[in-house]
Amino acid sequence: MEIDQDIKFYVDAVALDASKASSVISIASSEQKSLCLKSIAEDIDQSRGLIREANALDLDNARQGELESALLERLSLDESSIDKIVEGLYQVDLLGDPIGEISGLNYQDSGIQVGRMRVPLGVIAMIYESRPNVTIDAASLAIKTGNAVILRGGSESFFSNKQLAISIKNGLIKAKLPEACVQLINTTDRQAVGALLQKDDLIDVVIPRGGKGLIERVCNETKISVIKHLDGICHVYVDKEVDVDMAISVTFNSKSEKYGVCNAMETLLVHRDVAQPVLSELSSLFAEKGVELRCCPEARIICPSSKPVEDVDWSTEYLGPVLSIKVLDSLDEAIDHINNYGSHHTDVICTSSYESSRKFIRSVDSASVMVNSSSQFADGFEYGLGAEIGISTDKLHARGPVGLEGLTSEKYVVFGNGEVRRR
Amino acid sequence: MEIDQDIKFYVDAVALDASKASSVISIASSEQKSLCLKSIAEDIDQSRGLIREANALDLDNARQGELESALLERLSLDESSIDKIVEGLYQVDLLGDPIGEISGLNYQDSGIQVGRMRVPLGVIAMIYESRPNVTIDAASLAIKTGNAVILRGGSESFFSNKQLAISIKNGLIKAKLPEACVQLINTTDRQAVGALLQKDDLIDVVIPRGGKGLIERVCNETKISVIKHLDGICHVYVDKEVDVDMAISVTFNSKSEKYGVCNAMETLLVHRDVAQPVLSELSSLFAEKGVELRCCPEARIICPSSKPVEDVDWSTEYLGPVLSIKVLDSLDEAIDHINNYGSHHTDVICTSSYESSRKFIRSVDSASVMVNSSSQFADGFEYGLGAEIGISTDKLHARGPVGLEGLTSEKYVVFGNGEVRRR
Repeated sequence: MEIDQDIKFYVDAVALDASKASSVISIASSEQKSLCLKSIAEDIDQSRGLIREANALDLDNARQGELESALLERLSLDESSIDKIVEGLYQVDLLGDPIGEISGLNYQDSGIQVGRMRVPLGVIAMIYESRPNVTIDAASLAIKTGNAVILRGGSESFFSNKQLAISIKNGLIKAKLPEACVQLINTTDRQAVGALLQKDDLIDVVIPRGGKGLIERVCNETKISVIKHLDGICHVYVDKEVDVDMAISVTFNSKSEKYGVCNAMETLLVHRDVAQPVLSELSSLFAEKGVELRCCPEARIICPSSKPVEDVDWSTEYLGPVLSIKVLDSLDEAIDHINNYGSHHTDVICTSSYESSRKFIRSVDSASVMVNSSSQFADGFEYGLGAEIGISTDKLHARGPVGLEGLTSEKYVVFGNGEVRRR
Repeated sequence: MEIDQDIKFYVDAVALDASKASSVISIASSEQKSLCLKSIAEDIDQSRGLIREANALDLDNARQGELESALLERLSLDESSIDKIVEGLYQVDLLGDPIGEISGLNYQDSGIQVGRMRVPLGVIAMIYESRPNVTIDAASLAIKTGNAVILRGGSESFFSNKQLAISIKNGLIKAKLPEACVQLINTTDRQAVGALLQKDDLIDVVIPRGGKGLIERVCNETKISVIKHLDGICHVYVDKEVDVDMAISVTFNSKSEKYGVCNAMETLLVHRDVAQPVLSELSSLFAEKGVELRCCPEARIICPSSKPVEDVDWSTEYLGPVLSIKVLDSLDEAIDHINNYGSHHTDVICTSSYESSRKFIRSVDSASVMVNSSSQFADGFEYGLGAEIGISTDKLHARGPVGLEGLTSEKYVVFGNGEVRRR
């Protein structure tokens, strides 16, 4: 697709400015970055009126466009969501500065001392949909990690994002950092995304956040590295040796704590030996919650009000109150099922067997592999990362919940006394 | 380009077999992998005759095709290079098994314990040119890290590679590992490379090794992650406060220890205050070695037999006895020059100033940043990695010399006692 020249020129300039700004913020002091984050928080706190006015404009437009109520909810910035944004900034500020950390600095036989220093990636492009809070999340994590960031929010939250960007700019100015450290794309034209995705010479990583369509578009259109996850088809496997009550509690929470999240269980695998007690209790618990069960023939006998499962169910992410269930004969069968049909996101075993736990942990090829814990724990905050920019199901670079570390890389540093190489 | 159907079917089958084999070798025991490596070493040791016969065929073909003598040298397997291959296998065997290592296992407030486990990437495709020893290097590192590997060697080393692959197969069989853990593409048709690069559903990473043309082709044709480096435009900057003798020794070694390597210095930057003593001594040292100097006007006055430098020189990787030289006024100017013209590979400061060393280390955006050490130390073995599959100038995943760790990733592991999430 040919991109409009004006948009191309604009995006080229944005990317070039980001690249220049990145070389400044990459070596900014911890104090300077902290001042910036606190200043943004204060500015947002003092601009609540303006933010809510801008948000009201977005909400009006959205209502005219007949957006779904779930989308309206995500879009809306009430006092409590502004509180959370401000609080989030202070939380990121309190995290340790990851940049400049040197690890593994060891002397080698030649006399040189070799270690690794954590450094920013450079320029991040963040492409996201309706939630305006992502604007501040992404900006704060980028600033903390010394990266420049280009933000391309959804058109639905255009005015809210624009107002939030003013607070970000004010914070950057106060900390004497270049304004181009955080830039918001000022057009809702979709061609701007295409133009961004072509800037592989200046942008180091793209992080898309939103529906599968957006993420697939980004991956197809760019040569830049992408931090992403596509599906969360998570499993709980209930082993034959197990505390049945614990297994029921973990399984129920893995599905029902929240339905529309990527770390919710979509398929339950149960060993035949415990299928009766586990499924009979769960089928009534899930019935109360209105969760539709889609069962293999054997599970259907225990869950009479269930529907028959179809092959396509095993590779479906419902993101809602639906669960597929399979009874099987062994741990090996469960591991094969998960590695074949899963999305390598988060998978759980409930077991009281030491051997089963070790085998499951080693053999399941997923970003998070758990024993006796709810799949819904797969989250940057629950993992102690202090922040989360997304969850990656890729294997290279970041895998699983991505916190500050995922926005950094490590370079080698070498200290010598004039050593030379002889070969 | 339309790929021949037979080649496509063949490569599809190879990739599928690799994927199946990867799930077996990913959980192989350290003992099994060790037995495999030792068996390959023994088999090669006992097949010297066959290997040299196969290599003689390749050399004959190469001579008919009028290959350059440097290429012939790389292609040739004499007794001492077979010794090195065998020795290399035993060395990789002696390295610790990185797979399964769990780090940072910490309890969280919720009660769950979260850590990271090092795991294989899955399936690696290695695409390389004339050196047949890469066949064994790549196979041994893949086996050690529990990955399956598909090898596509250069057509010049076809028969040598084929013979070496027999020893690999024998080793895999002895260790009861699937033969498809290491597969050599059995055709020299270039379409096989194209077909491999399309298997992004089954191949996790591609590692091209060879000329820039090969690496660019790979990057342009694939959606699979690539571990690569394109250029090594390395700099030495001699600061104003410096031990002049040390600086001369480091600079001379950075250029002249070897010319055709990616970690050789291509540009020398010298502070004006020390230009006279540093350059007058170096110009006679380099003259003895026949190194051509291309100098900025100020440096030319000190190095009278030099040529004038042109702008294009600052971004040229000579890979030979040529050096560009610039005199400048400050550390900042040197850092700007390196970050603008360099290839983010390896850059060195020679200084006796604490402040300069710290600023250089923090500000230069390269895979290896060094103080008072020869750039030619940028190497997996010299860094204590025990092995090297290549050097990456990318920022994501692996950066700098890539050893065993670059062929692995980390998944999260979570251990609980039935904890559930409440939000």
